[in-house]
Amino acid sequence: MVTIAKIAQELGVSTSTVSKALNGYSEISEKTRSKIMNLATEMGYTPNATAQSLVRKRADTVGVVYEVEYGLKNLFFSSVLEAFRRNVQGRGYDILFLSDNGTSQNYLKHCISKNVDAVLVISTGTSVESVRKLINSDLALMMFDPWYQSKNTIYTDSYNAIKKSCKYLYDLGHRKIAFLNGSYSNFIGRERLKGYLDFIKEKNLEPYYIKNHSNESYSYDEGYKTMKNLFETYGLPDAVCTVSDLMAIGALHYLQNHGYHVPDDVSIIGFDDLSICDISTPKLTTMKQDIEAIGKQACDALIDMLVQGHRTVKPIIVDATIVVRDSCKKKSNH
Amino acid sequence: MVTIAKIAQELGVSTSTVSKALNGYSEISEKTRSKIMNLATEMGYTPNATAQSLVRKRADTVGVVYEVEYGLKNLFFSSVLEAFRRNVQGRGYDILFLSDNGTSQNYLKHCISKNVDAVLVISTGTSVESVRKLINSDLALMMFDPWYQSKNTIYTDSYNAIKKSCKYLYDLGHRKIAFLNGSYSNFIGRERLKGYLDFIKEKNLEPYYIKNHSNESYSYDEGYKTMKNLFETYGLPDAVCTVSDLMAIGALHYLQNHGYHVPDDVSIIGFDDLSICDISTPKLTTMKQDIEAIGKQACDALIDMLVQGHRTVKPIIVDATIVVRDSCKKKSNH
Repeated sequence: MVTIAKIAQELGVSTSTVSKALNGYSEISEKTRSKIMNLATEMGYTPNATAQSLVRKRADTVGVVYEVEYGLKNLFFSSVLEAFRRNVQGRGYDILFLSDNGTSQNYLKHCISKNVDAVLVISTGTSVESVRKLINSDLALMMFDPWYQSKNTIYTDSYNAIKKSCKYLYDLGHRKIAFLNGSYSNFIGRERLKGYLDFIKEKNLEPYYIKNHSNESYSYDEGYKTMKNLFETYGLPDAVCTVSDLMAIGALHYLQNHGYHVPDDVSIIGFDDLSICDISTPKLTTMKQDIEAIGKQACDALIDMLVQGHRTVKPIIVDATIVVRDSCKKKSNH
Repeated sequence: MVTIAKIAQELGVSTSTVSKALNGYSEISEKTRSKIMNLATEMGYTPNATAQSLVRKRADTVGVVYEVEYGLKNLFFSSVLEAFRRNVQGRGYDILFLSDNGTSQNYLKHCISKNVDAVLVISTGTSVESVRKLINSDLALMMFDPWYQSKNTIYTDSYNAIKKSCKYLYDLGHRKIAFLNGSYSNFIGRERLKGYLDFIKEKNLEPYYIKNHSNESYSYDEGYKTMKNLFETYGLPDAVCTVSDLMAIGALHYLQNHGYHVPDDVSIIGFDDLSICDISTPKLTTMKQDIEAIGKQACDALIDMLVQGHRTVKPIIVDATIVVRDSCKKKSNH
């Protein structure tokens, strides 16, 4: 390995001269610096980033808190991480997974000890308190899909997205519009329910949803079971508005298994626009979260904080748009 | 922040005494060491891992080379990374994504500069040369699904897995067994083709596969197109043996779109056992890669190398087993 000492020896100068030249100190003459830089390049010198980061107090590393059920197999959160990763790496930073070994985890200590400059909290499971300490620290931090209204958040405009989903179903002639709810315990889940209830109220319709059961995973199984529950409580709806593509496909399969045709008998709209929308039969019409924009804007906000030194940004709220495929249809007998 | 200087001041000893005690040097008496350790704990001292790693020459960080089409949205490779991640983090290591900004990437320099001790190469795109340098370095390294036979590889026994898939279809009475091929340019893809061809030969059957088109992505689209090509070249087969679940679902949809029923008219078997097998209609029978075992054994091998100091291990070859769902059926008119 080429070291500063070897370069110094080669040129007959001191190691501190070489070090100062490589680190851009002004007390070294341009002539000496250029001689040192050229030789360093020629010899294939690699600056040791760990040593450099001690001097510069940064490690070009962005930490990620990713406490997600099914981990990277979770299609939605892994898509968000992917979009973020591409942007961050494109700007020359590395991504470090902060370990999530359960509740004893101290993220702030971990970030300090690994010289992590900036953190994206993609999802939080049991370590709410540990994440709260991160938020209150002086690290640059952004939080995706916050579980409460906090500083430095980025999320899809869920309230208006669900209203748009409902309006799409309404405009197709459906009036008995059921809602497959998500979590009742976090901000995003409650925003989506509020969007549904406000739309129903504005149009003077009856609400059809399960009040006493919160869905925390947005999974296929939760969609299947909630559709069963809805069907057994209210009978067949005209249309189903959902909060995730996986839940929508779960509901779709429940209805198909009970002899109903989607979209001839019931329309279903998903939420997220994951790649599986093209794999389901029928292909799933959905409310697309702009995951590319979320990844890019989270990255931009973090790097701006690092460069400019501020630590607070206004909430970044991203619009959702409908993607029409084959699971929704005009109500036939209307 | 609690520093070594503060601890030293508090106890009236030199900073170098504190540093030596915290780093376990033997020249410090047990009494002094215990006094220093207790106070450090009490004051909430966090060792700076970057500084420590300079001393200990390790950073408790495992690098991952992950050059994958669709990135973390690739259902198969993200499952492998997830299994590896859980094991590695469970053993106290962090995962660092090594950037993949194209062909100019120098992974070895990157690992040295970030004090990465060990690397899992999950997939390599264009940076074959850069990965080759990693393999030839003295880093602890494991390579998943190698593109050629190399040292320190871990992979599913693809040759026998495909033979087992074919035998399953054969035992259901199918004789016109088509093969949806993967890559012809890498080791794993060629092993799978060899498994198919050897089985066909042993049973004295006719081979049905596309000789002149290599599939590099194992994607839904490749499955759809290759099924079209197979169908237009050879007509309807009894059964289709595939090299990925996504390709199998692509083939399934091609056949359904052309009026054929799976499994009544054609049986299809997937490969991988991804979560989407339960989402397709019908649910997909598949050859399951034991991704949990792959993640665990790759992790164990790397940590053994770090602890024991060796850098070469025998290939780790993991068995595959069939998971029966609804896409295969006994040949009716046999």
